[in-house]
Amino acid sequence: MPKQPRNAFYAQSGGVTAVINASACGVIETCRANERRIGKVYAGRHGIVGALSEDLIDTSKESAAAIRALRHTPAGAFGSARYKLKKLEEHRAQYERLIEVFKAHDIGYFFYNGGGDSADTCLKVAGLAEQLGYPIQAIHVPKTVDNDLPITDCCPGFGSVAKYVAVSIREAGFDVASMAKTSTKVFIMEVMGRHAGWIAAAGGLAAEKAGDAPHLILFPEISFDPEKFLSRVQQCVTEYGYCAVVVSEGVKNADGKFLADAGLRDAFGHAQLGGVGPVLAQLVKDKLNYKYHWAVADYLQRAARHIASKVDVEQAYALGKAAVQLALKGRNSVMPIIVRVNDQPYKWKIGEAPLAKVANQEKMLPRDYITPDGFHITAKARRYLSPLIKGEDYPPYRDGLPQYVTLKNTPVKPKLPGGFVV
Amino acid sequence: MPKQPRNAFYAQSGGVTAVINASACGVIETCRANERRIGKVYAGRHGIVGALSEDLIDTSKESAAAIRALRHTPAGAFGSARYKLKKLEEHRAQYERLIEVFKAHDIGYFFYNGGGDSADTCLKVAGLAEQLGYPIQAIHVPKTVDNDLPITDCCPGFGSVAKYVAVSIREAGFDVASMAKTSTKVFIMEVMGRHAGWIAAAGGLAAEKAGDAPHLILFPEISFDPEKFLSRVQQCVTEYGYCAVVVSEGVKNADGKFLADAGLRDAFGHAQLGGVGPVLAQLVKDKLNYKYHWAVADYLQRAARHIASKVDVEQAYALGKAAVQLALKGRNSVMPIIVRVNDQPYKWKIGEAPLAKVANQEKMLPRDYITPDGFHITAKARRYLSPLIKGEDYPPYRDGLPQYVTLKNTPVKPKLPGGFVV
Repeated sequence: MPKQPRNAFYAQSGGVTAVINASACGVIETCRANERRIGKVYAGRHGIVGALSEDLIDTSKESAAAIRALRHTPAGAFGSARYKLKKLEEHRAQYERLIEVFKAHDIGYFFYNGGGDSADTCLKVAGLAEQLGYPIQAIHVPKTVDNDLPITDCCPGFGSVAKYVAVSIREAGFDVASMAKTSTKVFIMEVMGRHAGWIAAAGGLAAEKAGDAPHLILFPEISFDPEKFLSRVQQCVTEYGYCAVVVSEGVKNADGKFLADAGLRDAFGHAQLGGVGPVLAQLVKDKLNYKYHWAVADYLQRAARHIASKVDVEQAYALGKAAVQLALKGRNSVMPIIVRVNDQPYKWKIGEAPLAKVANQEKMLPRDYITPDGFHITAKARRYLSPLIKGEDYPPYRDGLPQYVTLKNTPVKPKLPGGFVV
Repeated sequence: MPKQPRNAFYAQSGGVTAVINASACGVIETCRANERRIGKVYAGRHGIVGALSEDLIDTSKESAAAIRALRHTPAGAFGSARYKLKKLEEHRAQYERLIEVFKAHDIGYFFYNGGGDSADTCLKVAGLAEQLGYPIQAIHVPKTVDNDLPITDCCPGFGSVAKYVAVSIREAGFDVASMAKTSTKVFIMEVMGRHAGWIAAAGGLAAEKAGDAPHLILFPEISFDPEKFLSRVQQCVTEYGYCAVVVSEGVKNADGKFLADAGLRDAFGHAQLGGVGPVLAQLVKDKLNYKYHWAVADYLQRAARHIASKVDVEQAYALGKAAVQLALKGRNSVMPIIVRVNDQPYKWKIGEAPLAKVANQEKMLPRDYITPDGFHITAKARRYLSPLIKGEDYPPYRDGLPQYVTLKNTPVKPKLPGGFVV
């Protein structure tokens, strides 16, 4: 117990969310509350890139109020990165560099806040540190709007996107219903979700009774059948006067090809998608000649802190806090998780999972969350999803605009010779 | 004064907004409060189409709570219509039919809630009624997200879109700033505004200091110069690490052609736009090879009651109320307007304008609201726009979703022989 306090390193990884900073807030506040055990919290500027290039941020220069404001600020306050450390054998130099930087700054705690890829990195860092005899505890803090991490009941970031999508399609549905008699009859809203249809499924929560928007949901898990889709669109327009569709960016045709693959690849080798909304709208126009509108929410959905889910914010904070508590308990290579205790009333608690079971796994939307016809969600899905969007957690406003914090992000003086190329 | 109360007719026209139902609430509640002067309020199902086809809704069948809930419900609760009555000489039969329906239901007050086109219709109905010796008071209630009606300081519906756009680009800006080091460098958000750049301008409110998103705004008033645009994008990326752009759907090239004209026309003969976001993104990719993302907010922006401006909601309600009060004072062919008394602190009052001065006029964004370089808003624009997005007016939520009302919309028994073809 009366050991010399060692410093902590915190970094954000991958696509940011409305609540990843709430996890940062949980990590930093809990470290500050345990100053006898944990020294300073250094953050990586632009995630792990900041560690590799020894570009660390001294979070102790931020006021308590600034750190508190992270709880209601979307996106990544220290910068995030799409930068995947590859296999240990191929890029051993990078992993060794990380350990070297950690050693130079006496970092004993590594909190890595990200999705499946970063859980894998976290695990590898822990493994190599052990090999090299460098004592560090690597704890992964889960985060992904895609909700595709295994073991944890849900992932911070998802609940807020889910709420945004459900609220938005409800609102747009009211709009189209008003106009359909003489104008737009089909509205298509494209949402994120490359491989798993969790976000698209959340849109289904807006439909509480027959006829409510969305009428159709297109999932990446269900291969797209144009004939069936058009026939359902026509049926909705006939029955309800209009048709509101939520489509996942990751929808694929029968050959397994993305409908909206622009041929681009991101740094992780993933396809850059976007634009399936207009593709479908054109199909509806060509085959059914209905007047259409389409929206692509893109980053608006994952940055929408103004309509964040209260449950999501609370869980994001709690997982950041729990990560530090796990470290203080001596755990290594683990991730705090959400354990669902009860659906209704919703109750959850924090658990933990070994990273070896988390890394590089994708949790797909179960088939029984999708109706047999493939176009909507089941009662089971609703039971799972509904608690995650509960409660509002509004940020403070000034002059009509949300007041999000921008940190000072003061650099830590480098201690190593420069020149490491990331 | 002790006249027999006559009935009122209320209809919604054109694209709906987050607050047009707040005006309906103002009209109906004020009529109900004056039952000695005004009988029932009938609403047109799908706007003026409902009047022409004698498909009226008896709003007296709705509870006080349901009418109250209109104040926080987006879109058009009775259905709106894109249906323009043409010139009196060409379509006299339609105008005569309106008067005939009004006469059959003893309608002495015509409240028409819409934009420039409906102000024109309202004026023509009043003129013909006078010609035919049918006593009716025609009052126009302003509504348009485009903010392009003359004389009134602003138009209900605009403030809420303005707030949505400013909040969204601020949030997306934080997102892109986090990711830019290794991922997306250019983000383009397409917003509404066919001819006037009011909505795009509102996005500028999010930028409070140098470097804040949005960095560039593209207005329909400024012809698009690809070289200048690309050079500014590059400059932003160099200086701030990223570039966030708000683009109006109505941006035109040097030949005056919409960049995103899909060749379609709506019922009013207006071009159906949409898709300038991806057009610009492609340009950025081709010429600068930056990684990009784009969003098209489309109906989400005008339906976003969840983030409505409190000022906008209050003005929408007040104008509905004022329309009834003007009618009770014996006015005809007028529109209640917003008069700005003071910028800061913001003070406004209700005034009135003759419809002859309102109809078919478009108020463009003044050139001195746009910076000399054409890419942002001036302090003058900020002074005008800022008060309009002030305050939040959150709807009630249940289970994480906003509770919007769907009315019973009980039909009024027709009194005329059917068969009038709209």
